[in-house]
Amino acid sequence: MNLDKIYTDLTIPNESKIALVVYDGVGDIATESTGFRTPLEVAKTPNLDALAKHAAMGRLTPVAPGITPGSGPGHLGLFGYDPLEFEVGRGVIEALGLGIELKAGDIAARANFCTLNAKGLVTDRRAGRIDTKVCEAQVEILKKKIKKIGDVEVIIKAGKGHRFVVVFRGKGLEGPLTNSDPGREGQPIGVAKPIKKTAKTTKTAKIVAEFYKQALPLLKNCRPANGFLLRGIAHQPHIPSFQDRYGLKAACIAIYPMYKGLAQLVGMTKIEGAHSLAEEFELAVKALKTYDFVFIHIKPTDAAGEDGNFAAKVAAIEEADAGLATLIAAQPDVLVVTGDHSTPVPVKGHSWHPQPVLIASEISGWDGMERFTERAANHGSLGIFDAKYLIRFMQANAKRFDKFGA
Amino acid sequence: MNLDKIYTDLTIPNESKIALVVYDGVGDIATESTGFRTPLEVAKTPNLDALAKHAAMGRLTPVAPGITPGSGPGHLGLFGYDPLEFEVGRGVIEALGLGIELKAGDIAARANFCTLNAKGLVTDRRAGRIDTKVCEAQVEILKKKIKKIGDVEVIIKAGKGHRFVVVFRGKGLEGPLTNSDPGREGQPIGVAKPIKKTAKTTKTAKIVAEFYKQALPLLKNCRPANGFLLRGIAHQPHIPSFQDRYGLKAACIAIYPMYKGLAQLVGMTKIEGAHSLAEEFELAVKALKTYDFVFIHIKPTDAAGEDGNFAAKVAAIEEADAGLATLIAAQPDVLVVTGDHSTPVPVKGHSWHPQPVLIASEISGWDGMERFTERAANHGSLGIFDAKYLIRFMQANAKRFDKFGA
Repeated sequence: MNLDKIYTDLTIPNESKIALVVYDGVGDIATESTGFRTPLEVAKTPNLDALAKHAAMGRLTPVAPGITPGSGPGHLGLFGYDPLEFEVGRGVIEALGLGIELKAGDIAARANFCTLNAKGLVTDRRAGRIDTKVCEAQVEILKKKIKKIGDVEVIIKAGKGHRFVVVFRGKGLEGPLTNSDPGREGQPIGVAKPIKKTAKTTKTAKIVAEFYKQALPLLKNCRPANGFLLRGIAHQPHIPSFQDRYGLKAACIAIYPMYKGLAQLVGMTKIEGAHSLAEEFELAVKALKTYDFVFIHIKPTDAAGEDGNFAAKVAAIEEADAGLATLIAAQPDVLVVTGDHSTPVPVKGHSWHPQPVLIASEISGWDGMERFTERAANHGSLGIFDAKYLIRFMQANAKRFDKFGA
Repeated sequence: MNLDKIYTDLTIPNESKIALVVYDGVGDIATESTGFRTPLEVAKTPNLDALAKHAAMGRLTPVAPGITPGSGPGHLGLFGYDPLEFEVGRGVIEALGLGIELKAGDIAARANFCTLNAKGLVTDRRAGRIDTKVCEAQVEILKKKIKKIGDVEVIIKAGKGHRFVVVFRGKGLEGPLTNSDPGREGQPIGVAKPIKKTAKTTKTAKIVAEFYKQALPLLKNCRPANGFLLRGIAHQPHIPSFQDRYGLKAACIAIYPMYKGLAQLVGMTKIEGAHSLAEEFELAVKALKTYDFVFIHIKPTDAAGEDGNFAAKVAAIEEADAGLATLIAAQPDVLVVTGDHSTPVPVKGHSWHPQPVLIASEISGWDGMERFTERAANHGSLGIFDAKYLIRFMQANAKRFDKFGA
């Protein structure tokens, strides 16, 4: 019994429009330090409140009980792909985050500059957390000298602090490889080896080894970052497209590259041009005219949570609320508001706490809640469920499922 | 780990009595069109209210998130059989619905009269939705001429409109076969082929082909219904009996044939004689004296939901409430009230919304709810859970499970 196949068999097309609004990291917790209130509870959200009065609510377990997701698994779950089944390598996620447009067959690796001693042993896996500018300068050195290894193109891009990304583009490559990062100090740089030996992974391992051979001498005189460690060396996974899986022509509206990249991974069309929350919602309304499904990504809630800034998170929710009015006025058949995970202010980072979710449609029913908050959502008709099923409720509310059995 | 086996191993016999009352399609949603109330909320139900004050509550996911079940999967779930594992063909369900008593090995097919043009292509898959009387007359023509094909008995029965059922009864038959229904107009009638080729499915396909060979000429001059299409051609599946699985001697009380048929599928004894809700409850009280488990099916709630008739659904719930008093007075050890799925008035059909469930026993506990409604059930101690586990809670409340582990 393959449940995904049953869902696919039941899928029927129609003209309905679905909007998924993701307030990144919106879920929060009420603790003594926050006056026992959450940002959603404190924020003034007249538009979200109006929506709540026509909506079913619940909470989403992003991956599995107690598991805190990164942005990749968080979004894959919302898009209906079990994050435990569809694993996306850290290299791929980082590359997407830096705005590198990956192609099928590309191998991406996440890289850290590190410090090596005279014996070639790693003495600091983060090279004293060098400044981003230092990182950028050193990446320039590598980029200038290493453009190709054999028939494989090498793309290098600096990230924040000691982090950068390496992408290998060419024929016959495949991951994953083991990390060259030994995981602790006092060890030499490891050899990245195929996890499953095939002609393609063997070729990839050779290219990575050759990259090290060429790159390390170029960094010889750099201090403290005279080496680098690779992790999550893998190719972009094959993921069945949104269209094939759900029969939905989907578009993505986001400001940050990582979210556009994640949406593209599942075959959504990236709609460019938004530079503010207001513009994102305006573009969403436009996109709903030609797409069945529009995903709108709102970043500031997560950033405020990461900073442990309660007031900033409240402000971000309130700012998004104004944009939400634009979307509500466009009357999509199904309107969902949720997060990709929680980023509670007291945690100052992502967490496992289930994020609240709201589904508003003509047939969602109303659970009796006046507002959309974590604690209201606890009492909703959707219960606490795995994020991967959210898309199924969206399809059902859009009347895009046939009846099962007679 | 086979959970069903663990449950079986833990099962212990006792003298307890369990009653399962199914208000078909009782679950509903509160929307603006219904004044933000559900029929259960509006109905005056003194007896259900009294029960609520001694009950645990929750909601049942009939099949899987977002999946709307037909009556077959809906009831199988309530009976503790995972509807995704125990699939019952449409032909079998339709035959049960028409009151045909299927025997082990019978092959049942759902049939639609259709219109064929001179080239033998299907021009209308429903023959202009002919009247039931026309259907009955044409079925008579077929019945008269085709009683047996080789050693296989052929049973034909008219349904509503253009629908009828064909049952093939004989030795060595097995399904499923592919549909002869091409699924769209402009195509010829398809050939029903074995989905898995065996001696039995091959024989079945031959019998079906021969049935077509004999039947089509008989309809030659019928207009517009000069052909027919078969779907869901399958044998009655083997389902472990209620007695074997739960150690419960079970009886069924229903007015409509389909529900009696579904109960018989799992080995319940059909108790005849009820023509009204009141009579159903009276028979149930009697049956509890000789059976461990009695399933009572109440139809009017579903019919009212299908019609989108709020007042009729309220009236159906109120009418059932009077009968419920009879059952409560008989003091079964475990009394459960639920639906097989929701049939919300605003949907005018079955839906995926989890139906509310109430379990009252000496040890069910009280969740603090004054009434049994969808929104009260959201707060219950049972949570939202898969319907297939309901039977396990019934067994547990009946003290029919031993402790697991020391």
